[in-house]
Amino acid sequence: MSKTVISHLLERLKEIGVTDIFGVPGDYAFPVNDAICNDPDLNWIGCCSELNGAFAADGYARIKGCSALCTTYGVGELNALGGIAGAYAEHLPIFHIVGMPKHSILKGDNIMHHTLGNGEFDLFHKMVQPVVCASTILTPENTVSEVDRLINAALTQKKPVYFGIPGDFAMMELGCSDPHPLVKQKSNQETLATVVKIITDKIGKAKSPVAVVGTLIGRYDLRMETQEIIEKAGLPFTSMLMGKGTLSEFHPNFIGVYSGSLIAEDVRQIVEESDLIVSFGTIRSDINTGAFTIKFDPIGEINIHPDHVHVGHATYHNVFIKDVITALKKEIKSQNFIKNHEVKGLGQPQGSAEDKITADSLYPRIEKFFKSGDIIIAETGTSSMGLITAKLPEGALFYNQTLWGSIGWATPASFGAAVAAPDRRVVLVTGEGAHQLTVQEISQFGRLGLKPVIFCLNNDGYLIERMLGKNPYIYYNEIAQWNYSKLPEAFGMEDWFTAKVVNNQELDTALERADKADCGCYIEIVTDKMEASEMALALNRVVLKDGGWNK
Amino acid sequence: MSKTVISHLLERLKEIGVTDIFGVPGDYAFPVNDAICNDPDLNWIGCCSELNGAFAADGYARIKGCSALCTTYGVGELNALGGIAGAYAEHLPIFHIVGMPKHSILKGDNIMHHTLGNGEFDLFHKMVQPVVCASTILTPENTVSEVDRLINAALTQKKPVYFGIPGDFAMMELGCSDPHPLVKQKSNQETLATVVKIITDKIGKAKSPVAVVGTLIGRYDLRMETQEIIEKAGLPFTSMLMGKGTLSEFHPNFIGVYSGSLIAEDVRQIVEESDLIVSFGTIRSDINTGAFTIKFDPIGEINIHPDHVHVGHATYHNVFIKDVITALKKEIKSQNFIKNHEVKGLGQPQGSAEDKITADSLYPRIEKFFKSGDIIIAETGTSSMGLITAKLPEGALFYNQTLWGSIGWATPASFGAAVAAPDRRVVLVTGEGAHQLTVQEISQFGRLGLKPVIFCLNNDGYLIERMLGKNPYIYYNEIAQWNYSKLPEAFGMEDWFTAKVVNNQELDTALERADKADCGCYIEIVTDKMEASEMALALNRVVLKDGGWNK
Repeated sequence: MSKTVISHLLERLKEIGVTDIFGVPGDYAFPVNDAICNDPDLNWIGCCSELNGAFAADGYARIKGCSALCTTYGVGELNALGGIAGAYAEHLPIFHIVGMPKHSILKGDNIMHHTLGNGEFDLFHKMVQPVVCASTILTPENTVSEVDRLINAALTQKKPVYFGIPGDFAMMELGCSDPHPLVKQKSNQETLATVVKIITDKIGKAKSPVAVVGTLIGRYDLRMETQEIIEKAGLPFTSMLMGKGTLSEFHPNFIGVYSGSLIAEDVRQIVEESDLIVSFGTIRSDINTGAFTIKFDPIGEINIHPDHVHVGHATYHNVFIKDVITALKKEIKSQNFIKNHEVKGLGQPQGSAEDKITADSLYPRIEKFFKSGDIIIAETGTSSMGLITAKLPEGALFYNQTLWGSIGWATPASFGAAVAAPDRRVVLVTGEGAHQLTVQEISQFGRLGLKPVIFCLNNDGYLIERMLGKNPYIYYNEIAQWNYSKLPEAFGMEDWFTAKVVNNQELDTALERADKADCGCYIEIVTDKMEASEMALALNRVVLKDGGWNK
Repeated sequence: MSKTVISHLLERLKEIGVTDIFGVPGDYAFPVNDAICNDPDLNWIGCCSELNGAFAADGYARIKGCSALCTTYGVGELNALGGIAGAYAEHLPIFHIVGMPKHSILKGDNIMHHTLGNGEFDLFHKMVQPVVCASTILTPENTVSEVDRLINAALTQKKPVYFGIPGDFAMMELGCSDPHPLVKQKSNQETLATVVKIITDKIGKAKSPVAVVGTLIGRYDLRMETQEIIEKAGLPFTSMLMGKGTLSEFHPNFIGVYSGSLIAEDVRQIVEESDLIVSFGTIRSDINTGAFTIKFDPIGEINIHPDHVHVGHATYHNVFIKDVITALKKEIKSQNFIKNHEVKGLGQPQGSAEDKITADSLYPRIEKFFKSGDIIIAETGTSSMGLITAKLPEGALFYNQTLWGSIGWATPASFGAAVAAPDRRVVLVTGEGAHQLTVQEISQFGRLGLKPVIFCLNNDGYLIERMLGKNPYIYYNEIAQWNYSKLPEAFGMEDWFTAKVVNNQELDTALERADKADCGCYIEIVTDKMEASEMALALNRVVLKDGGWNK
């Protein structure tokens, strides 16, 4: 049977490992929706909203390397845009498939639903340009080559791409079976050899080098190779918030998470006294650098980026991260720079049984609750900041949307992660303010029989904003008061374990129950309004001291 | 005290009637958020999400003529984009105020949170261009003139506008107090006189003219004037879905809603046998024209648009709707074309007490439930279609997002309408599939002590899609099963009247309770999966017969 435009696209996506497609259906997208549902090797994962679908696809891509999202023209694609932008910022390849009106409609001037009513049909495709690394409108003639071009762009750059498919074209047979072959980017071999020699030489001559393992090592699936380099070179390594948990925090070379001068003074000393920093795929954003308080000697620094390498002030272009890491793994010399340094994590939980729950009592308990293999999704705000120095168990993964920082991301992202890894436990840690944006997506866990553990920290408003603003009690930081622990039942999960806890005893009891539960768990944790994590308090000091880092 | 950039903007917005600003706060927007909360004449209306905020602002603008929304840079503004696009399509002036990073940051190359990490700070402002009629980045120097320019554009074109405000600029004193005065658009007086003469002449000579009152008459606040014209000329009038309820449906000249050949055969006959159609601000979109089944004789038609008038095949430019209507009101001659025609509405509710709830039993009951002064917000899909021929009580307003048709709009839009008119009863009629997108916004009713009546039609999936697709039972039309009637309690409204009704007796009891209730009411109405309204069934026939109207 000959292939159609949509069947070819879906075949190619399956070849690269996509088994689930998130989305919200719509009439313009029916030919695409139909093809997905009728494909026995694909699962349509219906979401409550398009933004939630995009965040779920983001979470899925963090686990499986890429993901797909399908929305309808205009209304659907625009609602997803914030999530696609987040995937761009955070280096996640999402294949966004948009079902468009038929070609004849696009060329006409009828006022169709889901349009602006001005007869212009190409506006939405134009609007999306800044937040994707490639886009196309598929036709029977261009499909074979365009699908390859976009898949290559997405997987090379780890960014979202946009496929618009006019409804009638979707079902047409491919018009061209012999496309111009795609020329994939390759590292310049001479530059690569030069860079690898410089790096190995610098490490060879260093006295106290430290590696920083960044989030892009996870994105480019280079965990194993990077760990081998670190082990062979005997490098101590740290990470920053965005890259937390990329390599095991129980690895003997791990020295703890670095966040400049904000927290973890012991790690700060080791890093800042080092005579050589080797950065593997780090992103130097404000929050990730402890509000720009990190201090790396720029002359002594090596920094491996997706398509270039910085060595001090020099930039080497046309060397791709996978090639650099692969070559380094071969060339790196056996050395040992390890000194004894214990990573303690958050320590013993504080507070007695009847006490209110505080940051000191809460985050260490959550740390102890984590177990090997967990996928931890921590929302933007004080809740993720409370876990930055938690010591993750072996094999646990930790994700936070550090750069884009869109509150509401974590709830659907945790659903997407659970779809990607249904056999692993997913733990969502979210503040209640952020949770309110996308809360309905927890119903999808129940619908698919997935069993996450959800910690909803109810601190009576937007706590991170109280920490960052001049007047913490101004009323825009107040939000509607919900009965959070009743949400699972309302959303259809009558069999979940739910609890609302206000003191340490109740928290301990709930954690014990959740630890043993064979069902979804939803625990509302009530704290005082200003009960912030250590890093959030440190950010608060930066703001109060000199008006913030946003200078 | 001298004015700042933000205080000037807020003063001007208050002058045109804005008393409430919807939004979600964020650190880049703090100076704007602060100024709003500290202004005793403004209310900050915090929403659960930015999209919900945009839809709420849309609902508010339908009642008050314009509205304001405030979001933070990047994450916030992009999440609102679908709602802003909807306001563009549906002719609603929303003042979208975006709090941006400080000017020094915008000029720098630091990787800041809520950016794409590529050092580009002007992308989001560019992305929004197609869905606003004007935009600006305010500075102390340009604020006075730019604020006037954008307010004028929004109120003239009835479309959203975009104010970006760098955080540091917000608090700076105005740098220019003597702006270039704004030259407002004026109708060409000769064209205006010509057009008005043609219209009055044509009506004078017609035998069976019919007026069609469109949604733009509401948007341009020309209800009274249009009614006077219709009364003086003795014109029978109809409306289409989008303009439903613009003038009273108890007016003796009203002949019922026209939707081409889809429904209301009696109205179709009158309209299509008319020798002159006079359209007042109608929008000829697919759904609004009964899937393009309306039939107006193009030679005999007069069509008054916001800035031009069509008479047959001729177009008269530079005549603005307010000027045309005002002049017509003066010039129109007294005539009488009224024939006896009773508008029956939906008739008697069908079904006996123990029967399941059907379209025939449901919509007539909802029609009878409506009372004078109600603001009715009907969601896209079969639920609004079921009410298209309901006869609205005197003074009731009816809103539907007919052109943009973004499911999820109605729930927050009803909240926005309630904020705009806290003394009126707001009735939301939504299908459960659409409701899932934005459901959390119902918590804002409770927070502000507002008392809507919410009808959630639970028909086990996306019914309108089952009607429009080839295979109604394909699984992308299935959604998570919620306990809808438990949502109000989970969202903090323990004192609301809630009910889940599955037969006509239960429905009647719930309606009686809701009619007398002095609290919010939430009624989940369960019907069979394929229990569609008459218009939805008619659309289904169009789809099955010839593959749909999307040709």
